[in-house]
Amino acid sequence: MSFEAAVHAKAIRLDTLALTMCGHAGSGHPTTALSLGHLTTCLMYHAMRWVPEDPGLATADRLVLSEGHAVPIIYAAFADLGAMIGPPDDLRPCTVEDLEHFRESDSPLDGHPNPREGFTFFDAATGSLGQGLSVAAGLGLAARGDELDQRIFCVIGDGESREGQIWEAIDFIIDHALSNVLPIFNCNGLGQAGGVSEQQSPERIAAKLEACGLQVHTIDGHDPKAIQDALDAFAAGPSQPMAIVARTVKGWGVPSMQGAGWHGKPAQGDKLDAALKELSATGVTLTGTMTASNLTINPPTTATRPEPVVQTAMGLKEAANQWDMGTLIQTSKLSTRKAFGLAMRALGHTDNRVWSLDADVQNSTFAEWFANDADLSSRFAECRIAEQNMISVAAGLAAAGKVPYCSTFSKFVTRAYDQIEMAMNSGANLKIVGSHSGISLAADGPSQMSLPDVAWFRSLGSAVGHSGGPACWTLHPSDAWSAFRLTQLMAEHDGMCYMRVHRPEVEFLYNENTEFTFGGMEVLLEGRDVLIVSAGYMVHECNLALDGLDKLGIDASLVDCYSLPFDEERLLDLANENGGNVVVVEDNYGGGLFSAVAEACVRGGDAFTVEPMHVTRIPKSARSADDILEQCGLDHKNIVSRVAAMLGITVRKNPPMVAK
Amino acid sequence: MSFEAAVHAKAIRLDTLALTMCGHAGSGHPTTALSLGHLTTCLMYHAMRWVPEDPGLATADRLVLSEGHAVPIIYAAFADLGAMIGPPDDLRPCTVEDLEHFRESDSPLDGHPNPREGFTFFDAATGSLGQGLSVAAGLGLAARGDELDQRIFCVIGDGESREGQIWEAIDFIIDHALSNVLPIFNCNGLGQAGGVSEQQSPERIAAKLEACGLQVHTIDGHDPKAIQDALDAFAAGPSQPMAIVARTVKGWGVPSMQGAGWHGKPAQGDKLDAALKELSATGVTLTGTMTASNLTINPPTTATRPEPVVQTAMGLKEAANQWDMGTLIQTSKLSTRKAFGLAMRALGHTDNRVWSLDADVQNSTFAEWFANDADLSSRFAECRIAEQNMISVAAGLAAAGKVPYCSTFSKFVTRAYDQIEMAMNSGANLKIVGSHSGISLAADGPSQMSLPDVAWFRSLGSAVGHSGGPACWTLHPSDAWSAFRLTQLMAEHDGMCYMRVHRPEVEFLYNENTEFTFGGMEVLLEGRDVLIVSAGYMVHECNLALDGLDKLGIDASLVDCYSLPFDEERLLDLANENGGNVVVVEDNYGGGLFSAVAEACVRGGDAFTVEPMHVTRIPKSARSADDILEQCGLDHKNIVSRVAAMLGITVRKNPPMVAK
Repeated sequence: MSFEAAVHAKAIRLDTLALTMCGHAGSGHPTTALSLGHLTTCLMYHAMRWVPEDPGLATADRLVLSEGHAVPIIYAAFADLGAMIGPPDDLRPCTVEDLEHFRESDSPLDGHPNPREGFTFFDAATGSLGQGLSVAAGLGLAARGDELDQRIFCVIGDGESREGQIWEAIDFIIDHALSNVLPIFNCNGLGQAGGVSEQQSPERIAAKLEACGLQVHTIDGHDPKAIQDALDAFAAGPSQPMAIVARTVKGWGVPSMQGAGWHGKPAQGDKLDAALKELSATGVTLTGTMTASNLTINPPTTATRPEPVVQTAMGLKEAANQWDMGTLIQTSKLSTRKAFGLAMRALGHTDNRVWSLDADVQNSTFAEWFANDADLSSRFAECRIAEQNMISVAAGLAAAGKVPYCSTFSKFVTRAYDQIEMAMNSGANLKIVGSHSGISLAADGPSQMSLPDVAWFRSLGSAVGHSGGPACWTLHPSDAWSAFRLTQLMAEHDGMCYMRVHRPEVEFLYNENTEFTFGGMEVLLEGRDVLIVSAGYMVHECNLALDGLDKLGIDASLVDCYSLPFDEERLLDLANENGGNVVVVEDNYGGGLFSAVAEACVRGGDAFTVEPMHVTRIPKSARSADDILEQCGLDHKNIVSRVAAMLGITVRKNPPMVAK
Repeated sequence: MSFEAAVHAKAIRLDTLALTMCGHAGSGHPTTALSLGHLTTCLMYHAMRWVPEDPGLATADRLVLSEGHAVPIIYAAFADLGAMIGPPDDLRPCTVEDLEHFRESDSPLDGHPNPREGFTFFDAATGSLGQGLSVAAGLGLAARGDELDQRIFCVIGDGESREGQIWEAIDFIIDHALSNVLPIFNCNGLGQAGGVSEQQSPERIAAKLEACGLQVHTIDGHDPKAIQDALDAFAAGPSQPMAIVARTVKGWGVPSMQGAGWHGKPAQGDKLDAALKELSATGVTLTGTMTASNLTINPPTTATRPEPVVQTAMGLKEAANQWDMGTLIQTSKLSTRKAFGLAMRALGHTDNRVWSLDADVQNSTFAEWFANDADLSSRFAECRIAEQNMISVAAGLAAAGKVPYCSTFSKFVTRAYDQIEMAMNSGANLKIVGSHSGISLAADGPSQMSLPDVAWFRSLGSAVGHSGGPACWTLHPSDAWSAFRLTQLMAEHDGMCYMRVHRPEVEFLYNENTEFTFGGMEVLLEGRDVLIVSAGYMVHECNLALDGLDKLGIDASLVDCYSLPFDEERLLDLANENGGNVVVVEDNYGGGLFSAVAEACVRGGDAFTVEPMHVTRIPKSARSADDILEQCGLDHKNIVSRVAAMLGITVRKNPPMVAK
């Protein structure tokens, strides 16, 4: 039996299983799966160097199924091959019987690719479209960094290629000359609601790819020879990054399920029987039986990746002195963003898993201190102004065992919230650092300010992640010592973290002896009358308010809640020690620290009075941090009056001015 | 004096003002502004048909400055022309003196374009990059809908064009043949952190644009004649959408401020004097004085847009009967997403300001009922799988007086959170409807589920918007009657709203006599022992739990909190009537309804016990809504046990099964 015939027969076998599996589930996307039967066969039974007994093998060629809804065709191959599924520590062969449980609550065969639910073949959860090629680029970057002969294949839908992120990924692939990544566009011409736009036709996609600088092979996606020739060209190592544009048929082999109206619709009962008949009829021209000689799955050339090297972390002073930045410390004043940059440089030298990614603002986030260090620059990736791609590239790096830190303005991190959540679902060990957080950047105005970010990341942290504990930690350091240490702590933790740093230079509040922990908080002043809870830049404004409160005879406590979630018991003790009076001061919209404190206070059934002070208007520009705080009613004078009012103490018209 | 000389002289005049203004502010992006001196002059003093005395005139040609940080060059033109600034009801001429207050807290000359802070010339707040061209496309769509001879100009940075959204907008412009929109790429070759990628070179950008199907004019952006010829070609009405790729110099005319390292850095003191000297030297070759004949600003051909027609809204039954959907109602069971689709169709017929936009899921959101109505289809825009572009296009439509509804899965709305926040900052009258919210869609798994969405939109609502009241309302209907009515209420409200609807068919809870309001809530059962607070799909699960609670002798109250924010006093009264015992049941991560209730409870200083029941694991697929609720510990049995435990009542191992 010829190679072509073998591929054809196998494709029909996989298509049959895909149709049946979706029929059982009563949902799924069989027609999309059928458009990939031949491509999947050529990839998984021949071109990809992998080990079905160990589908998570880190050195094997990888497949990122960006159009995640096509996953039944992959599950079909697994059942056909008896490849292993289940949790990494309890793998078992996938059987045809498993397919009957597709999409069930306890099945590892999830509705869309979901590596952490028992399918280690995949590196990333996909299904929210347009993200896979960036993940593939991250895997390709890591492979090159580890000098690994590894190929990364990525299957993208034609309709999906409307997502701008696909084109951010293409630019990134060219920028970084990632010829070990192969984008395969599955052009079946149909989206969910109807035909795809002419802008996503195979001709147009090919023209766009060529204009971007890729070498493009346009083929018939159901012609085994054409597919194999293109995959061979890729295997030969093209001079420039290449892509495959494959013309395919949605519902290939099953005329009764072709055309619009069949997206995400399984055939059941008689319709399924009819579909299976049509499909088998497609295969009758084939003769002979398939032999191993036709389709062979080869293992990767090596089974091991280089071992990571992690040494003892450096201290802030040690790091500053090592790179002649000692003066930074002597002034006892340093912005949290600079402390992050210094910590990144130190981390880079003690932990070679650490990568730094930035989006054209490395000179604002100070990721440049990592980027410009000759020993580290190979682990820095300039992602340009394309935040979505940056986050998904980092998810790919994380899947390859790296510890990527993505930095940009907190406001621009918003651009990639969907990508961040998908990375979280993938269990990616990803660190996100947003600079210029809150309002203290002032002059550039609201288009550069992050305001609902604490609420969103806190929400992620309310769920348990795949490695246990909060699915995401939100860290909000108030000074250089805490920012430096928290940057290190993120690398020591396996899981997603978001750290929020600020633009202004701020006084030191801590020193080398202060201990910081996930869930911890630091009490800066212990009083009896009222507990002021704050974090980040606002801790300094609260500090200023303390003098004013003291002048009014108010004995206030101040706690720096640099971690969300935090130790609720500890906070409630502090609140009780202060007569149950709490004021929460933040430089963001609601839903952040105030909500966290309120939630803690209502669980116990005790009576507390908690007053919020957060941004309650859409800010505009102001020349200085002081001006913007005044504009938003959050300066130290406002804090003094609010606390006084809460305690029923009248303040003179002009509350005592506090020297700054 | 020739046209060229006049443009050149004027550009130097504007550049001088831009340099000086940034020097005064001590911040801003003068070098970017200087790369646009000649282009701005040709646009604002000649090509654009507008009225400096009425810069917000809705029929005038529009300029969207996508690279918002270049705004000083626009402010310079305003001061030079004495064009009007300030709030719409209190306009005054802009003076050179105003420029000295650039970026001050009370200045209408904000750090980035900010129409709602006193600069009506702009339609959209920009500064978070990559969004402007989509806004321009929305303005172009509205102009065509109103049969208006209006041209929309959009200036995009080269580095900015790395954002995928720019290419989503380009595809949209071709799809909708928007030849009234002119993208102008400002290729000065420099980003913030350094030179732009070769992928953003003028050659590459031009090649990409041509591959996308645009007619491209590549010009010297400092050559008045070349600029004018290109703008004339656009004015002549090109056969296909066109674009200008302009080679420019960042810091044009000021060698001492050219090259990397000058992004966002103003020259001050001696450096400013030197820069101004260099700049004036550039102009010495010019002779003669400028006369009006050289540069003339023409008004638009018409001063009025068609008046909107808004009639009395239809009721649910009336609408259903009108389109032979009466059976939908007779079953007394209808999904909230279908009720939304029906409401959209009804709204479309009674309010011609209403537009519907969808992202390739109109057959899931039921926006198709609007799209397929021959009377409405011209006001439907299929945005394909590109959510960022959809939201910003809608912001453009809103700026033109339309009331756009954007629908897609709530999960995919996340893709556009940055665009949504910028639209909010623009004061856009935008309605966002997310379907398949929460976990009840079950089988497709977490890649399709919206989980932190309530926390994020609630955070936006904690700020006061430009039209007063919450900057964004979050609406979460539990049945068809509420979904239908809330869809209408959104159109009656000027401001941003987010409505969360679900996939499953659900029983009616209300009828034509039920009244729904922003901030309102509906009490479904009044008891004495415990208050169950819920919204959306979970109200039905709580309803099921009531029987189980009754069997345990628990007299529970159930309130449907379909609006965030809500009437806190009302909720506290209900809580007090139930012994201060509250359980909040949600199908999303934390930070949503529970936080809102907790916040209300801690303001007063009374003692309450509030228990959260929300999603606390990353969900996976399940075959049915019941299966996923069980997987997440949120089914009616869990609710019964949680409430019982809270009240110290022991439940039998198998709590009473409640028939469904």
